Amino acid sequence: MITLKSFLCGQWQQGSGGEATLVNPATGEPVATCTSRGLDLQAALAYARDTGGPALRRLTFAERGALLKRMSQALHEAREELVAASTANNGATRGDAKFDVDGAIGTLAYYAKLGADLGSKHGDRTFLLEGPAEPLTRAPRFCGYHVWTSRPGVALHINAFNFPAWGLAEKAACAILAGMPVITKPATSTALTAFRAVEVLVDKAGLPDGALQLVCGSVGDLCDHLLPEDAIAFTGSADTGAKLRSSRSVVERSTRLNIEADSINSAVLGPDVQPGSETWHMFVRHLATEITQKSGQKCTATRRIFVPRAHADTLQEALIEKLAAIRLGNPADEGVDMGPLATAQQLDDAHRGIKLLCDDGGRIVFGSTGNPVGRGFFLPPVLLRHDDAAAARVVHAHEVFGPVSSLLPYDGDASAAAALVARGEGTLVCSVYSDDKAFLEGMIGASACWTGRLLVGSEKVADQAITPGMVLPSCIHGGPGRAGGGEELGGERGLRFYMQRTAVQGDRALLDRVLQAPKEPATTA
Amino acid sequence: MITLKSFLCGQWQQGSGGEATLVNPATGEPVATCTSRGLDLQAALAYARDTGGPALRRLTFAERGALLKRMSQALHEAREELVAASTANNGATRGDAKFDVDGAIGTLAYYAKLGADLGSKHGDRTFLLEGPAEPLTRAPRFCGYHVWTSRPGVALHINAFNFPAWGLAEKAACAILAGMPVITKPATSTALTAFRAVEVLVDKAGLPDGALQLVCGSVGDLCDHLLPEDAIAFTGSADTGAKLRSSRSVVERSTRLNIEADSINSAVLGPDVQPGSETWHMFVRHLATEITQKSGQKCTATRRIFVPRAHADTLQEALIEKLAAIRLGNPADEGVDMGPLATAQQLDDAHRGIKLLCDDGGRIVFGSTGNPVGRGFFLPPVLLRHDDAAAARVVHAHEVFGPVSSLLPYDGDASAAAALVARGEGTLVCSVYSDDKAFLEGMIGASACWTGRLLVGSEKVADQAITPGMVLPSCIHGGPGRAGGGEELGGERGLRFYMQRTAVQGDRALLDRVLQAPKEPATTA
Repeated sequence: MITLKSFLCGQWQQGSGGEATLVNPATGEPVATCTSRGLDLQAALAYARDTGGPALRRLTFAERGALLKRMSQALHEAREELVAASTANNGATRGDAKFDVDGAIGTLAYYAKLGADLGSKHGDRTFLLEGPAEPLTRAPRFCGYHVWTSRPGVALHINAFNFPAWGLAEKAACAILAGMPVITKPATSTALTAFRAVEVLVDKAGLPDGALQLVCGSVGDLCDHLLPEDAIAFTGSADTGAKLRSSRSVVERSTRLNIEADSINSAVLGPDVQPGSETWHMFVRHLATEITQKSGQKCTATRRIFVPRAHADTLQEALIEKLAAIRLGNPADEGVDMGPLATAQQLDDAHRGIKLLCDDGGRIVFGSTGNPVGRGFFLPPVLLRHDDAAAARVVHAHEVFGPVSSLLPYDGDASAAAALVARGEGTLVCSVYSDDKAFLEGMIGASACWTGRLLVGSEKVADQAITPGMVLPSCIHGGPGRAGGGEELGGERGLRFYMQRTAVQGDRALLDRVLQAPKEPATTA
Repeated sequence: MITLKSFLCGQWQQGSGGEATLVNPATGEPVATCTSRGLDLQAALAYARDTGGPALRRLTFAERGALLKRMSQALHEAREELVAASTANNGATRGDAKFDVDGAIGTLAYYAKLGADLGSKHGDRTFLLEGPAEPLTRAPRFCGYHVWTSRPGVALHINAFNFPAWGLAEKAACAILAGMPVITKPATSTALTAFRAVEVLVDKAGLPDGALQLVCGSVGDLCDHLLPEDAIAFTGSADTGAKLRSSRSVVERSTRLNIEADSINSAVLGPDVQPGSETWHMFVRHLATEITQKSGQKCTATRRIFVPRAHADTLQEALIEKLAAIRLGNPADEGVDMGPLATAQQLDDAHRGIKLLCDDGGRIVFGSTGNPVGRGFFLPPVLLRHDDAAAARVVHAHEVFGPVSSLLPYDGDASAAAALVARGEGTLVCSVYSDDKAFLEGMIGASACWTGRLLVGSEKVADQAITPGMVLPSCIHGGPGRAGGGEELGGERGLRFYMQRTAVQGDRALLDRVLQAPKEPATTA
């Protein structure tokens, strides 16, 4: 059993008192202890602001990209060690652990490439120009640019327990490329992987002093000490999100806050899709993945499955066949498809949630709430069915964060499906499976406003499309309402949260020189 | 004396009980009464969501643009009436009233034109595509678009007392073009102009039912009844902003909130600018305008004037000469340059603020706090000087919302000036007057992150540049930190707050058809 230290002010520091014990959720055995008590977290804020920030802001985008590349490479070299940590502390199967760790490596590599591209485009400038100069008045010389500059504060990243590596990396990649130093705080219960990752990064990635700090344990009241130039990016529960929204810094100082909360994501089958078709098979395959991958502990997992009533029984059978083949067990053992939930608390919450769904008119059509393994925090895949989707309330409002999903027949009409999707009050992702243009137009037109991402599964991409739960760095990740109202990633879009947009107005020729604006492309006669 | 009604659910409705009395601030005489007590504001929310929203979302961007054009034209036809209302209730001079009313007319016209342009670009689609399709994986057919769709809720606009016409129009223009219905609430103390403006719009602009509603008086606890799909745009004090940030809808439901708060804007004179030069004269002229226009009651007014120590006395003399020529009085009278503050409360706050500045090391070098007119809420222009800008605290942290500004000598170094600008902890605008490329690079590089807009005043645009306090619809308006952390306007940027961005992923060919994506420009060999 190891003791997780924090990396603060350029040194590994160990707290003392009130230690939390991190366990292997497959066995319940302790794997590490962790506390931040007694550590000077405010000194870490100052170190980030005074040392890390200036160091990063001095780098060009290309240089920041090169830093991210070193980070990606360092994690890649430590891949097996990180996968092992994820298995030991997250109860992740090898596939699930790779999903997290490779996601981290890939996202850093993506932003490394973006840094190189921005370097080519913006030269050695350390700010970004948005669009060309625009005339502002009738005066010919007087024009306006919009520029993006790095915020001169610190980015506090508070991550969820389910993606200890990817969560750290995707937030850090955007902040660092934008020129903001990071203090990252993994969820305590599964902090081992993040701790190992930061060990590797500190040793191997050549991080500028103060660019990346790690808090293992609680951040205490750190959020109340943030300043207008700082930013908090949080992934986790809506309750914690609401607390952060009420923190003094956010309320009184306009400290920026981005929230990604869990959401009640939907998958919708179009009425045109026939059982046995390519699109049908993709739909069933995606659903099985979404229910079981990472034991359903993904904020992007599908929770509500809307199926035209005529095909509901057939879908139910097909999905049960997939779920029945899932081998549950300790991911350290051979041949296991699905591991446990991450903590005893998560298991309790899932049990309570399933009961709420059953009380709401749902009935379990596959699985049970018992623990077939006999120890650890296991929950087998559970499929519920709600025959009256419109009358149901809890299924649209309460997420069970485990391998649990609900099948809800609907009448096959796009506007009816969209109205049910909207009952979730904002989601991270909605997937729609159809080859019918009119149905897709109806669904996209009415549902896009309720979700941060919309995946269209159709015949031609049956073998190419990602599953709905997969987050790609090139597309925004986040969603309105219950999903937290935030936005991350999306290529260059993901940098904006860490930057300030400013309209710069003045003499065109002078601004062109000062801002090193690129020449407009020459027009050919 | 008239009674201001509210326009709710398609009808003019009059509250009853707890009436506020609106006065002419030049005379203290009552001009109107106003209350929203007893009105069913929640019914107005439902009417906006169920009637106004669908009506607006059915319109194309070109059609919404045409609506804004009718709104602009209707206000233009009623210009004299609105100017009279502004003089009677805001104590605005004719110039100040036109600044507000013409700003409203011009901003609506600008967004009308933008709607027409978006219509040309996006056809009859009711959503916006952001950029071209991007490949997401190695799979050739699988791609991603980012689309912007109208949020399906209501936009609640809470405006400040100083710009009753422009504040209403600039927020409404963005929301309506984005497809969101508006409930607008002017500051009660100066609601007369907004009331007249909505009367005109209802009569003349052919508004779709539910697209624009007006609350004269308090909105009570309306903010606690907003839903995830709704949005609040607020301009006003930081205290009220903090209350809105703590409202249940924002904290628990991710209701969007944009805040524009007053800020302690800076003007910085570069060390290269010699007294008597074109740039110098522009600087002095701009400062005089910023101090006196609208009696200094602009969130964008210059509050801190940073001048190289060597030129501080000369600047002080030049500015005093301008201020001494200002004729204070009832704006209904001929030849008056500056009117009163808007309310007795504002005058009290300004008196208290001037005292705070004096206690902080400032001394009044021009003006006094007496009321030379003998009635109404008059305050003459007041110039203070703080010889130790770095030691001063209040001048960087407390805004006096009146014709009051402070002169602060600095050593002429860009990084020193930028550090002083940053002491304001976030502003709406910073203006820099210089023809020196290196000084401007230093100021922009270090100060852009602290301000939403940066005006460069230089010789070549001495007669063309806008004054720093002027907000143009083509440039973003807002600022970090103390300025509220929000953003409005900026052309198409201003629509985003009222829309949801969604990554749409799927088969390239299918998405191109469903999203009616424009053909990529053909490349010539």
